[in-house]
Amino acid sequence: MSDAPEILESYLNGAWRRGEGVETELVDPVHGTVLATASARGLDLKAALDSARKHGGPALRALSFAERAKLIGAVADVLIANRAKYEAIAVANSGNTKIDAAIDIDGGIGTLKYYARLGGSLGGATFLLDEKPVRLAKAENFQAIHLLAPRHGVAVCINAFNFPSWGLWEKAAVALLAGVPVLAKPASSTALLTHAMVRDVIAAKVLPEGAIGLLCGGAGNLLDGVTAEDVIAFTGSSETAARILKHPNILARGVHVNIEADSVNAALLAPGASDAAFDAFVKEVGREMTVKAGQKCTAIRRVFAPADRAGVVAEALLARLKKTTLGDPRDESVRMGPLVTRAQQAAAFDGIGKIANNAQVLTGGATAPSIDGIDPTKSAFVAPTLMRVADGAGADAVHDTEVFGPAATIVPYQSEDEAFALITRGGGSLVASVYGDDHAFFARAVAALGPSHGRLLMVEPSIADAHTGHGIVMPQCHHGGPGRAGNGEELGGLHGLRLYHQRLAVQGSMNLLAALQAKAYALH
Amino acid sequence: MSDAPEILESYLNGAWRRGEGVETELVDPVHGTVLATASARGLDLKAALDSARKHGGPALRALSFAERAKLIGAVADVLIANRAKYEAIAVANSGNTKIDAAIDIDGGIGTLKYYARLGGSLGGATFLLDEKPVRLAKAENFQAIHLLAPRHGVAVCINAFNFPSWGLWEKAAVALLAGVPVLAKPASSTALLTHAMVRDVIAAKVLPEGAIGLLCGGAGNLLDGVTAEDVIAFTGSSETAARILKHPNILARGVHVNIEADSVNAALLAPGASDAAFDAFVKEVGREMTVKAGQKCTAIRRVFAPADRAGVVAEALLARLKKTTLGDPRDESVRMGPLVTRAQQAAAFDGIGKIANNAQVLTGGATAPSIDGIDPTKSAFVAPTLMRVADGAGADAVHDTEVFGPAATIVPYQSEDEAFALITRGGGSLVASVYGDDHAFFARAVAALGPSHGRLLMVEPSIADAHTGHGIVMPQCHHGGPGRAGNGEELGGLHGLRLYHQRLAVQGSMNLLAALQAKAYALH
Repeated sequence: MSDAPEILESYLNGAWRRGEGVETELVDPVHGTVLATASARGLDLKAALDSARKHGGPALRALSFAERAKLIGAVADVLIANRAKYEAIAVANSGNTKIDAAIDIDGGIGTLKYYARLGGSLGGATFLLDEKPVRLAKAENFQAIHLLAPRHGVAVCINAFNFPSWGLWEKAAVALLAGVPVLAKPASSTALLTHAMVRDVIAAKVLPEGAIGLLCGGAGNLLDGVTAEDVIAFTGSSETAARILKHPNILARGVHVNIEADSVNAALLAPGASDAAFDAFVKEVGREMTVKAGQKCTAIRRVFAPADRAGVVAEALLARLKKTTLGDPRDESVRMGPLVTRAQQAAAFDGIGKIANNAQVLTGGATAPSIDGIDPTKSAFVAPTLMRVADGAGADAVHDTEVFGPAATIVPYQSEDEAFALITRGGGSLVASVYGDDHAFFARAVAALGPSHGRLLMVEPSIADAHTGHGIVMPQCHHGGPGRAGNGEELGGLHGLRLYHQRLAVQGSMNLLAALQAKAYALH
Repeated sequence: MSDAPEILESYLNGAWRRGEGVETELVDPVHGTVLATASARGLDLKAALDSARKHGGPALRALSFAERAKLIGAVADVLIANRAKYEAIAVANSGNTKIDAAIDIDGGIGTLKYYARLGGSLGGATFLLDEKPVRLAKAENFQAIHLLAPRHGVAVCINAFNFPSWGLWEKAAVALLAGVPVLAKPASSTALLTHAMVRDVIAAKVLPEGAIGLLCGGAGNLLDGVTAEDVIAFTGSSETAARILKHPNILARGVHVNIEADSVNAALLAPGASDAAFDAFVKEVGREMTVKAGQKCTAIRRVFAPADRAGVVAEALLARLKKTTLGDPRDESVRMGPLVTRAQQAAAFDGIGKIANNAQVLTGGATAPSIDGIDPTKSAFVAPTLMRVADGAGADAVHDTEVFGPAATIVPYQSEDEAFALITRGGGSLVASVYGDDHAFFARAVAALGPSHGRLLMVEPSIADAHTGHGIVMPQCHHGGPGRAGNGEELGGLHGLRLYHQRLAVQGSMNLLAALQAKAYALH
């Protein structure tokens, strides 16, 4: 990157377009340097949506699933060829370590490759078929099938600052496979990586014109231009989610909105867990707190331990966190970088302060850590922060407050039922993980916690080294949680395609239904 | 019914409770007589929700699907035993003919019996299993399954005035089978039937305590008491739907809301349709306009005909509508009764007026018809009203305005593409029906109209006498449409259970997953 801040343009309506002035400065969160600026002011977003509907949609829908899958594979290849450049951007703009950057970049590429492979298996079909034909009347010749038909609008993919790569591609891969063009709207503060990736993909001409657009800068009047044919796929804060959901045009047109919002995820050490399960628990909590400086919507925020083991859990975690060297991620010895912006740092300190009103701060806290060679007035560091409450039932803030940084709170519990009830106080979460040895306990945990979670990871010693992690979102698995997590459903293999399709019953003669079934891939 | 208006009580928190004063008078729409009054003022709705969660939910979840299915069958038996009483109420309070009443009452009973049968086939399971286990890592012992777990909250079923029986039971059957207790909130104006049915079911003690509650009267602060564990299943106007969706508590907690709203459904006569297809088209449009005096959310509102046949379509429909005798439905010769209230009559006249600004009124119109022995200042009649526009593309009101009464508008089209584009102007509908002979045309209609509809009925001569109707919602089929129809998904056999379950990935060892699968019914 050169010294003069890059001006990020948007790719809309078939051309790169520059907004007026500066809406957001993109900053290096280690040194405070301005890397780029973004603005979408004055851009015609309605024209961009219309164009995607008019050109991108028909071009994609003219292809079969397998043909679209090839395009997705080609996108992955473009990104692989440019990977080194992306890593440097992630380090500079997001304060990522190389491991953090890999989770984002390779997570995006891996998800594209997964859907390229999965889509290839759908062959020449253009619809999906849900269930077998159902009888409706005495006459055998009149029945119904359930089809999933690709929506004729645009997938407006609004992404959070913490995953400028994965957040884009986990949505775009599924939308493109469904035959729905994408308009990507990354969070401005870390949009440099999204911008570079989309620029490379467009330059490589691997997608039909109109299949992908990019909006760098504020959303402006984007939501006014959305129609009932479009889908909004949003990841971010519940406050922004609420603004979308109650927007007059979204309500009036009944636009389909999918929300993945923050959640206060839990890890639970089972009563009587073996030492091996205990070790797996401590290792995963420590990792979740520090990877990407805790900036994952799936990260562990609440750490449930049997009351008589809360002390040893705290000691073991403190010992782990002590080894987490903070600093400039360009330094190979550094294990954890800063948060992405000083605004995020301030929000994290605010959240830590709220929880600390009813909790003991065991390490870290709500002040900027002192780091050699780093100016605390320009950087966005938060020290790994471990807290502990005495009374889990009385500490509302622990269950309500998501600190989007390297912070977690130990909550002791007396009984299994109390543990399940306290975890449910999160009001709906993306994921919880349970560490133990007893399958009967795991089964009770599934019944008690399942309805309030989108994913449960059950770790017993035999898979302690094999599991994919509490916080890692696998494209094979359902991603999304109920309640405050937003009620969304993303990924989960072919299930993810549903968001971009309309499910409908087609009632008609058996001959007609047979002809329609021939164009459809049967989901079962 | 006696002469003194009945005071409808609510069944909340294990007892029948009377609200203060009168919120709504329930009126006979033929004569204007007050039949009953309803009020929920002063009732503790939060306590009712808490009680259902505490007692009804655990009692239902302790049962298997097959055991719950038996309860649903027992509910149907109670209703069958009391059917004659319900018909009299439907005639008096809803102005139904006997055929109209049967659609509502037997539709409800039939849906209960369908789910009793379907639920029986799920056996001893307590979860649903979505797809087969998926591999996530190199180690074969670590995989994931997708379960549907019943939600731990209440199904708050808010129903529209037009289906006080079917509207309740099509929701309650599915919720109860899922193990989720029901709080039914019927529209006040026609709540007499819902009240009578729930009273009989509770008196028969066929459901566990807390499994069903009833709120007669206004919703008061009901939405303030709803949590992330609950589901709101709403059928009604898009205005009320928007009020629910943007309610602060619903947004803050991310409550799962399913909406079935009004839509401007279409029927399409294919280009070059045979006489037999033409006859099937005219018969179905005529029936849809007059059954339940057009008060079905699925009724045909827009009648698309090739421009050169619009005249003969009009003539044929006028001939049919002429035979529709209006009057007191207690009179056996009467074919169509009034709307349910004078407020609904006024709303229908308003809608007809809007459309008539750009349309020719061929019969009927926006004034109360003159009927022997009926006082037009006390009754709620609307004459069958057929309109015709010259320019379908220019007439916005035809595509935007749902007249919730016996009214439809003929829209002539020049080409297949124009017909599809005009139908899509409805902004998302519950159902469209297509009448023709050519399977290739039907297939193009599915591709073009599928994404904007929840159901498509394709009528060719061979099934003209066998199909179940444009407006009849079969429990086997998806019910719900995108966009202004609310994006909801109800019924559709086992698919309907999803609304009351949380879908989640469970990641763990193969042994654990096998134990969980043993408790689940595999959907595929």
